[in-house]
Amino acid sequence: MNEIAKKLLKDVTGLEDMPKGAYNIRENSKTVSRQSSENIEIVGKEDKSGIDIIVKSNTKSESVFIPALVSCGGVSDLVYNDFFIGENADITIIAGCGVSTGDSCDGSEHNGIHRFFLGKNSRVRYVEKHIGVGTGTGKRVIDPVTEVVQEENSYMEMETTQIKGVDSTRRFTKANLKVGATLVIKEKLMTHGEQFAESKFEVDMDGEDSRVNLISRSVARDYSRQTFISKISGNTRCMGHSECDAIIMDHGVVSAIPEITANSLDAALIHEAAIGKIAGEQIIKLMTLGLTESEAEAKIIDGFLN
Amino acid sequence: MNEIAKKLLKDVTGLEDMPKGAYNIRENSKTVSRQSSENIEIVGKEDKSGIDIIVKSNTKSESVFIPALVSCGGVSDLVYNDFFIGENADITIIAGCGVSTGDSCDGSEHNGIHRFFLGKNSRVRYVEKHIGVGTGTGKRVIDPVTEVVQEENSYMEMETTQIKGVDSTRRFTKANLKVGATLVIKEKLMTHGEQFAESKFEVDMDGEDSRVNLISRSVARDYSRQTFISKISGNTRCMGHSECDAIIMDHGVVSAIPEITANSLDAALIHEAAIGKIAGEQIIKLMTLGLTESEAEAKIIDGFLN
Repeated sequence: MNEIAKKLLKDVTGLEDMPKGAYNIRENSKTVSRQSSENIEIVGKEDKSGIDIIVKSNTKSESVFIPALVSCGGVSDLVYNDFFIGENADITIIAGCGVSTGDSCDGSEHNGIHRFFLGKNSRVRYVEKHIGVGTGTGKRVIDPVTEVVQEENSYMEMETTQIKGVDSTRRFTKANLKVGATLVIKEKLMTHGEQFAESKFEVDMDGEDSRVNLISRSVARDYSRQTFISKISGNTRCMGHSECDAIIMDHGVVSAIPEITANSLDAALIHEAAIGKIAGEQIIKLMTLGLTESEAEAKIIDGFLN
Repeated sequence: MNEIAKKLLKDVTGLEDMPKGAYNIRENSKTVSRQSSENIEIVGKEDKSGIDIIVKSNTKSESVFIPALVSCGGVSDLVYNDFFIGENADITIIAGCGVSTGDSCDGSEHNGIHRFFLGKNSRVRYVEKHIGVGTGTGKRVIDPVTEVVQEENSYMEMETTQIKGVDSTRRFTKANLKVGATLVIKEKLMTHGEQFAESKFEVDMDGEDSRVNLISRSVARDYSRQTFISKISGNTRCMGHSECDAIIMDHGVVSAIPEITANSLDAALIHEAAIGKIAGEQIIKLMTLGLTESEAEAKIIDGFLN
């Protein structure tokens, strides 16, 4: 791995070096390092680029790292990763993608197609950070597609973060929840320059007592544009909630289009969205405490996203 | 007017007889009675079916009645009504539509295309009730299209109610708000049987300090289906709020699809929606006070819609 890739790895996963346990590190469309553990097996796919991550039933408190790095311009990476989570397992997955185009005027993109199959009573915490780096004109594009199938009483928490440097992203997340399954998605997004970000969710609550909670917090700066689309269908006794809070700054534009459909008498669905700029009073309050205007702004945004 | 039409007139407008002041009563695609007042002139259109309602500037505290009645099956009514509201006027418009198909197996429909042009500083309260009556298999359809253009500092409040008997409705309301203009829409809807209702709003806030507030409350009973769609664009300093609360009963299905887009840093937009059935505790509470289950249910729905 070159220095750029090492820096990206640290920014995306927090890792300074190869982690213990299971991991697969992908750089410029190829696996550069892979390790399975006793309970988590990682196998390369034979028919296409990507891996199967197979987690044994009852695996507890283990983590698996699967970052994808693009360390130069002119790369178009497409990867298929499938996660098979055994019954009663309880694991953390650290994913994420860093794209660096350096001073190149060629763009690079990473498209990850992830599928998660959560066995009965399993629990997954999925942490994903997307970053882009580069001073050239090459566009950095990340378009992830995520598909989740949750068996009985499984629990999945997804934390996705995209704070800077990604010029264009279209994120599509689809989930199907069986009896008693719970899905929590926490999305944090900040766009600047002329970036574009779209985040789309489609959740079918087919199982009784399934639950979903989508929480999106975003900041659109400069001339950036964001679209948030969520579609929650309650097809049985279930609870769904989506909320989208966005701060606009400069000339940022944000659209929120949540859709909730109750197809069952026993579905309880709620959504909320609010879009606006930072209230002037909040800034003045912090300025009276000695902060400059831009420090006050930064503090408010930091608090909002964290 | 026949007895059926008289009864519809009363149900839609509350009128037992012809009102004082300006009115236009339409029955089965024809004007059956019309009267202008000193300040409110009603003129038949020459190129198509419908009327122009011209309200003089500074007209205060006057009402105009313009109900449309369909008193038999097999009628397909299409009417174009344009309202020109003079500056500083402050009036109430009582509109609404009653469709009775009796025991006919032929359906009837009324489609009203209404346009409102509100002059500077004018105020309009628009009250509209839609009802359907009939024991035959003929479908009763009401598809209103409303277009509102509000000049500086004008105020419009629309109260629309559809409680029973309309088999299918597609309502489309579009508004453009200039500087300081305010639009308030309160929609009440109850569907039953196999009825279908769609309510769609599109509001452009182009003027600084314009405001919109959309409030929809609905109940979907039996096998009825409802879709609520709102699209609010804040294009300058403005405030927008939409809320959609729906109670589902039996096998009712409700979708809410609100869209808010902030195209300006100074747009503040909020929407909320909640769909669910009546909480069991609420019913039990009222039953301990001596009500039967269905009385308790009726009381809760009544409170919710009023």
